[in-house]
Amino acid sequence: MKRTVLTIITLIFTTSIFAQFGAPVLVSPEIDGNNVTIRFCAPKAIKVELNGDFLPKKEVETPQGKMLLPAPVEMTEGEDGVWEYTAKDVTPDFYTYTISVDGIQMLDPNNLKVVRDGQRISNMFIVPGEKSNEFLEAKDHKGMLSKVWYPSKAFGAERRMSVYTPFGYGESNKKYPVFYLQHGGGGDEDAWATLGRACQILDNLIAQRKAEPMIVVMPNADPNSLAAPDIMEPLPGPSIFSLGMESEELHSGGAYTKDLVEDIIPYIESHYKVIKKKEARAIAGLSMGGIYTLYTTARHPELFDYIGVLSMGFTPGRDAEAELTPIKNAGYKLYWVGCGESDMAWENAERLLKGLDEKDMEHTYFGKVGGHNWDTWRVCLKEMAPLLFK
Amino acid sequence: MKRTVLTIITLIFTTSIFAQFGAPVLVSPEIDGNNVTIRFCAPKAIKVELNGDFLPKKEVETPQGKMLLPAPVEMTEGEDGVWEYTAKDVTPDFYTYTISVDGIQMLDPNNLKVVRDGQRISNMFIVPGEKSNEFLEAKDHKGMLSKVWYPSKAFGAERRMSVYTPFGYGESNKKYPVFYLQHGGGGDEDAWATLGRACQILDNLIAQRKAEPMIVVMPNADPNSLAAPDIMEPLPGPSIFSLGMESEELHSGGAYTKDLVEDIIPYIESHYKVIKKKEARAIAGLSMGGIYTLYTTARHPELFDYIGVLSMGFTPGRDAEAELTPIKNAGYKLYWVGCGESDMAWENAERLLKGLDEKDMEHTYFGKVGGHNWDTWRVCLKEMAPLLFK
Repeated sequence: MKRTVLTIITLIFTTSIFAQFGAPVLVSPEIDGNNVTIRFCAPKAIKVELNGDFLPKKEVETPQGKMLLPAPVEMTEGEDGVWEYTAKDVTPDFYTYTISVDGIQMLDPNNLKVVRDGQRISNMFIVPGEKSNEFLEAKDHKGMLSKVWYPSKAFGAERRMSVYTPFGYGESNKKYPVFYLQHGGGGDEDAWATLGRACQILDNLIAQRKAEPMIVVMPNADPNSLAAPDIMEPLPGPSIFSLGMESEELHSGGAYTKDLVEDIIPYIESHYKVIKKKEARAIAGLSMGGIYTLYTTARHPELFDYIGVLSMGFTPGRDAEAELTPIKNAGYKLYWVGCGESDMAWENAERLLKGLDEKDMEHTYFGKVGGHNWDTWRVCLKEMAPLLFK
Repeated sequence: MKRTVLTIITLIFTTSIFAQFGAPVLVSPEIDGNNVTIRFCAPKAIKVELNGDFLPKKEVETPQGKMLLPAPVEMTEGEDGVWEYTAKDVTPDFYTYTISVDGIQMLDPNNLKVVRDGQRISNMFIVPGEKSNEFLEAKDHKGMLSKVWYPSKAFGAERRMSVYTPFGYGESNKKYPVFYLQHGGGGDEDAWATLGRACQILDNLIAQRKAEPMIVVMPNADPNSLAAPDIMEPLPGPSIFSLGMESEELHSGGAYTKDLVEDIIPYIESHYKVIKKKEARAIAGLSMGGIYTLYTTARHPELFDYIGVLSMGFTPGRDAEAELTPIKNAGYKLYWVGCGESDMAWENAERLLKGLDEKDMEHTYFGKVGGHNWDTWRVCLKEMAPLLFK
């Protein structure tokens, strides 16, 4: 009888763990202090390469000139057909990678942590340490993440957004300020909560009393997508990118701004315990979400006292005078620009900063970040959030 | 100037879409009516196989004897190094698959839909049609999914659970019944919401008035995991499976039952608008979660009027008389058993059904399902949910 129990439990065990990958499971990634080893079993492969944002940097030719960027490395094959690479002295942080087998990009089948950045997927890991602790669940008192469907009149459909409510929200009688946080091109309502680690960053900042307890609303700004693709197929029709080229209004945020102002904000303000005032509303966005932030704040300067533009600024067609004057006239408490000089949107950010200077508008510039990637945007969120609602 | 805008937008576009996979993106899966084509680019591979639950069935030797199971198929290489396989006349449903390249299991890099089933990951797709519509977002009026941290005294830590609240919950003044739904071995709080499609199934049943509006609580029953691995690393120490063999009490649900009864239910009943009565509480679980359901209901027969055991039953050591008598004495409204004869837990289910017969306890048996897999559990949820709270 004991043997039958053993068989049953073994079956449950083997079905879940081993059914998919016949061979014994490799440890990958193995994180030993600051050294990270990636392993991949491919006895018949000729060349296995690793691509990841934690790899040593090399000089690469880009449209912005020569840049130091993490470069793919060749993995080394062992006797057992297991390819391996160890990156030494990796700075504690959150990293993503993929593996290229004879030129074809793969995920690491031994790493269960898969993150989707809009239209691409990769594996992730965290190297524990001072910086990464800000992106880990290091503290108790964690907030709640909800996937909320709201009726969008602007797009004529129910759409899905992510809403973070801070620890204690459920029990509290107080009203909270709200931070509206936009994703970039190709993203959706999952982006800030997964690769952006928005909940973990806010949990830690709030627990350490560095940031005010706030609600963070992370909408889906893609007209073709009512929700992330695992929940619902994208709508048929041209993508936002091709539409963007045809329709300046749509690409620059016209339709999305209507949805945000007429649907999302009223939904949040009627369904959550929030302070319905300009001084209790913040808005920020990265890349395409930065374009949407600029567009929205210029047209609705009455709504937000706190404005953040990440990895973006004025694209060449924008008239800084026209876009900034309404905001200056309406008044604001924070205008925050986060963009590194190696960011592909740096020229846009420069134009925005120049416009703010010319209009004599007080602003905070944060440039201690790298390129147009999630490492930059996580750091921006961590830097900007403590300045809100104070 | 127009060219600069074009360059910037092209950069945003290419970074998001193509950066990861240098080659042009393949369409995979391609769903054309009921035919599904999977494509995979691997010019240097010698053999590429496809594994998926939508593939034609073959007779396979299993511990339960010969069974008809979906069998891996070889993909065919085209001139361009793209391997392809078309499955014809696939029944509309939700399916998962992986690709095996020279013996190494991979995900399809062209399919963004990745689902994690506890310790394994695979791609998924849905073939639209009558059956699959029950698992799609076919209707408006969708409920909300929240990832909720609650203080667990039983495990001495904050732990994460998934909570579904039906459409209209936020605006309503009424109180709702609650369905506590347990995952299987190797799973966590994400399992029922992703592979189980619990939100979509409930959304559709409730919109069609086939099921009562209810809250569905999907806890994480793994003592080693405070949350899904993308949120938090598993705790160090032996896994629940190895512990299970050493500790009958832990494996059979002792620690989890304490957490459910003393932490989770009180948290839900103090934070949500719920009816705090036996007649408004249901419990079910699949596989290991079925063991936990049996263990919990036998020891707390005062709590639940609706009981569901999916792909499980009495393991050989269990005394049906002792485990069922308390439930019979306390009274109940539904005892539901869902398990197919080809399920690896069928012998356990048979023992449970025999015990229910011997104790002359009314019950509903549902057997029109296949093996020990998510197709079975989605169908079970769809069949059982309409019987609750009526």
